[in-house]
Amino acid sequence: MMEIQKVHAEIVTIGDEILYGQITDTNSQWMSVELDKIGIKVIRKSSVGDDEIEILTILSEAEKRADIILITGGLGPTNDDITKKTIAKHFNCGLILNQEALKEVSDFFQKRGRELTEVNKQQAYLPEKATYVPNKWGTAPGMWLENGTKVFVSMPGVPFEMKGLMTHEIIPRLKSKFHCPVIYHKVIKTAGIGESFLAEKIKSWEENLPDEMKLAYLPGFDGVKLRITSLGKDEATLISKTNQELEKLKELAGSYIYGYDDDTMGSAIGRLLKEKKHTIATAESCTGGYVSHLITLVPGSSAYFMGGVVAYDNRIKMEILGVKEETLREHGAVSEETVKEMAEGVRKKFKTSVGIASTGIAGPDGGTEEKPVGTVWIGYSDQGKTIAKKLVFGKEREVNIRLTGLYLLNFLRESLG
Amino acid sequence: MMEIQKVHAEIVTIGDEILYGQITDTNSQWMSVELDKIGIKVIRKSSVGDDEIEILTILSEAEKRADIILITGGLGPTNDDITKKTIAKHFNCGLILNQEALKEVSDFFQKRGRELTEVNKQQAYLPEKATYVPNKWGTAPGMWLENGTKVFVSMPGVPFEMKGLMTHEIIPRLKSKFHCPVIYHKVIKTAGIGESFLAEKIKSWEENLPDEMKLAYLPGFDGVKLRITSLGKDEATLISKTNQELEKLKELAGSYIYGYDDDTMGSAIGRLLKEKKHTIATAESCTGGYVSHLITLVPGSSAYFMGGVVAYDNRIKMEILGVKEETLREHGAVSEETVKEMAEGVRKKFKTSVGIASTGIAGPDGGTEEKPVGTVWIGYSDQGKTIAKKLVFGKEREVNIRLTGLYLLNFLRESLG
Repeated sequence: MMEIQKVHAEIVTIGDEILYGQITDTNSQWMSVELDKIGIKVIRKSSVGDDEIEILTILSEAEKRADIILITGGLGPTNDDITKKTIAKHFNCGLILNQEALKEVSDFFQKRGRELTEVNKQQAYLPEKATYVPNKWGTAPGMWLENGTKVFVSMPGVPFEMKGLMTHEIIPRLKSKFHCPVIYHKVIKTAGIGESFLAEKIKSWEENLPDEMKLAYLPGFDGVKLRITSLGKDEATLISKTNQELEKLKELAGSYIYGYDDDTMGSAIGRLLKEKKHTIATAESCTGGYVSHLITLVPGSSAYFMGGVVAYDNRIKMEILGVKEETLREHGAVSEETVKEMAEGVRKKFKTSVGIASTGIAGPDGGTEEKPVGTVWIGYSDQGKTIAKKLVFGKEREVNIRLTGLYLLNFLRESLG
Repeated sequence: MMEIQKVHAEIVTIGDEILYGQITDTNSQWMSVELDKIGIKVIRKSSVGDDEIEILTILSEAEKRADIILITGGLGPTNDDITKKTIAKHFNCGLILNQEALKEVSDFFQKRGRELTEVNKQQAYLPEKATYVPNKWGTAPGMWLENGTKVFVSMPGVPFEMKGLMTHEIIPRLKSKFHCPVIYHKVIKTAGIGESFLAEKIKSWEENLPDEMKLAYLPGFDGVKLRITSLGKDEATLISKTNQELEKLKELAGSYIYGYDDDTMGSAIGRLLKEKKHTIATAESCTGGYVSHLITLVPGSSAYFMGGVVAYDNRIKMEILGVKEETLREHGAVSEETVKEMAEGVRKKFKTSVGIASTGIAGPDGGTEEKPVGTVWIGYSDQGKTIAKKLVFGKEREVNIRLTGLYLLNFLRESLG
C-alpha cells in the first residue's frame, strides 16, 4: 500500500467506570470515524482510570507517539473526576477561573431556570495554559492545549456533549492546523455468508486489487463487512478506482451484498420497499417489537411502514391477527403454520402489500424437547405468496431476539427479489 | 481507601476496524466486568491496529505494567490478521501445526457438514510456546502463554467466541493461578435527576462513607448511576456494610432509585407490574416498537406483557386503537388527547389492567413551528386514571426514540406508585 506522511492521533478515555466495565466506550469509535474523514489516522486508543499517575503516564506516552491527543472523560463536577487538575500538572501550570467558561456555565443554568451551585462553579476553573473551548451542550468546558507541535484536546465523556464539541469546535480547528492526506473508505455489507466462505469466493479479486487499496474483513453480528481503504492525494480518483473494483466484486458476490457504508439492514429494506412501491406491516411474537424498531429507526420509514402488532399472548394472535385457534392447538404458537397466518393476517388487517412475522422461543426458559429454546419461525406474505423459514439459535434471549430480527429482514430482502 | 495488593490486568484489542471506528469494542467492557468479579483489576485498555510494530510495542509495554495481558482480535483466517505470528515473534518462537487445534477445527466443519478449506487449516498453526485453549464456539483457537510470572491470553474478537472462551476456559485458569482479594461493587440506578443535583442531595452521606468504600457517579443515557466499591478480605462483611449505607442513601434519594446492579428500567417495571399483579399493553407511534422491545428483553415478561400495537399510520390509530377521527383532526396525532386515547384504547383492546402510549415527532423531518422535531407525548392508563406528559427533545431521531422509551417506562414506574 502506498504510504503518505500522515497526521497521527491517539484517543485517551478516562474513567474508572470504563475499566470496571460499567459503561461501554462508544465515544472513541465515533471520534475515530470523524478523524478518519479528515485524513487523521488514529494509531492507538487507551483507557485509564481516574488515577493521577495513570493519567500522567498515558499523556506522556501519547505525546511521544502522536501529533494530536484527544482526551475524554473525568470532567464532571464531582470529586472522583480529576482530569482537569492532572492535565494542569502535565502542563506544569495551575488552575485559574476562566471568565468565559464561568459565563457559559452560568448561562446554561439560567436558561434552564436552575440555580448555579458551588459545585458547578468549579467547572469554570481551567489549566492556565488551556484555551477555553465553549461547550454549548453541557456544563463541562472543552479545552485546547499546545506543547510545541503537539495538540491536546480535553472534552467531557457524555457522548452528545463530546459530539457537539468535536463537530462544531474541534474538527474545524484540527483541519485548519494540520495538512491532511486524502483517505477513502468503502464498506460493503453482506449477509448470509460466513467470513471464510466469502474469502474463498472473492480470493482472485482480492489478490488483484491495486497497490493503493487495502481490504479488510469485519465479521459482525449483522453479517460480514468488507472495507476497501485507499490513500492518495485526489478523492475523485480514489472514488472512481474503488467503484471499478466494486463492479468486479458484485459479479462474484453480488447476491450477498445488501448495502454500503452507513446502510443498515433496516435502511436497505426501506430502499427496496420504496423502489418496489410496497407497504409493510409486522406481526411479532418472540422479537417483541425489535423488528419494527429496526424498521422505524430509519428516517422516512413512515412512507412504507404502516405499523405492527406485538402478539405475545396467543389471544392477541387470534383476535387481532386472525390466527386460527385450531392452528395454535394443532401446531403450536411456534410453527410454520402459525407464522404464515401471522404474516398474512397482519398484511390483511393493516391493508399493506407485504406482511412479515416472527414466532419462537427466545429463552432462557420455555423450551421443550421437540422445540428447544432458540427455535424460531419467520414468515413473509405478499399478494402472490406466503412463505416461512425455520431458524435454530442458542440459549441467550437477547442474542436470539437480535438475530431473529436481522434474519427476518434479510428474509424479507431475499423474498422481495 | 484501604489498599490490598491486587492482581493487575491489561486488555489489548487488535484490529484496524477498531481504530477506524468501524466497530464498537464491546469485548473489553464485558471482560472488565468478569475480571472485576474475581478481584482482578484492569489498569488499562488499549486498542492498536493490525500492524506488527504497534502490536509488539503494546505487548512489551503491557508486560511491564500488568500481571495478565488479555488480547482479542486479529485471529481470523484472512490475510489482514497477524496477531498470531506477532505473538510468536514477541515470544521469540515459530508457528507449528497444533494437532489438537487441527482436530477441533476439522470437527467444527464436519459437524456443520462443510468442507475444511486450506484457509481454515491455517488456523491450527500456533506459536510453539503457546498452550492451546479449545474454542468450541468458532474456528480461531484460544492461546495461553507464560513468561515468568506474566500470563498472556489470546482470543478471537468475535464477541460470543471470546465470551465462551473466557467463561469456560480462561476465568477458571486465572482463578487457579492467581490469589485474588475480594472486591464488592454495588451499583444504584436512578432516573429523573441530574448528576450535580443528586450530588448536592446526597453530599452529607457521601462525605461520611467509611474509608474502605469509594463512590463514583456514572451519568448515562438512562439516568445517573452510583457505584459503591469496597475492598477487603471477606465478602459477607463488605455486603452487610454496603447495605447499611444503602439504607441511609434511600432516605435521601429513594424516589429516584429504580434498581440495582443488572437491573434495567425494563426489569424494574417488570418486577413492579408482577408485584402489583398488573398486565400491560403498549401503543406506540414515534417509538416504533422500541418500548415493547425494552419490556420483552426481560426473561419472563410474557407473564405481564400481553402485546402491543405499533400505530405509525393514523388509520391504525383509529381502526385498531380506537382513537377518534375528530381527536386526530382537532388536536393532531402528537397531542395530549391522542396519546391518552391510545393508552386507554390499547388497554381496552388487549384487556390489560394498564396501557401505555407514545406519540411524537422523532425527526429528522416532520416538525412544524408549533410542534418542532423532538416534541413527544407519553401516556398512561389504568382502571382509575388516564394521564399524559409532554417531553421536549432535540433533533436526533435515534436519541429521541431511545429517550422517549426510557422516559415512558419511568413514567409508568412513577404512575404505578
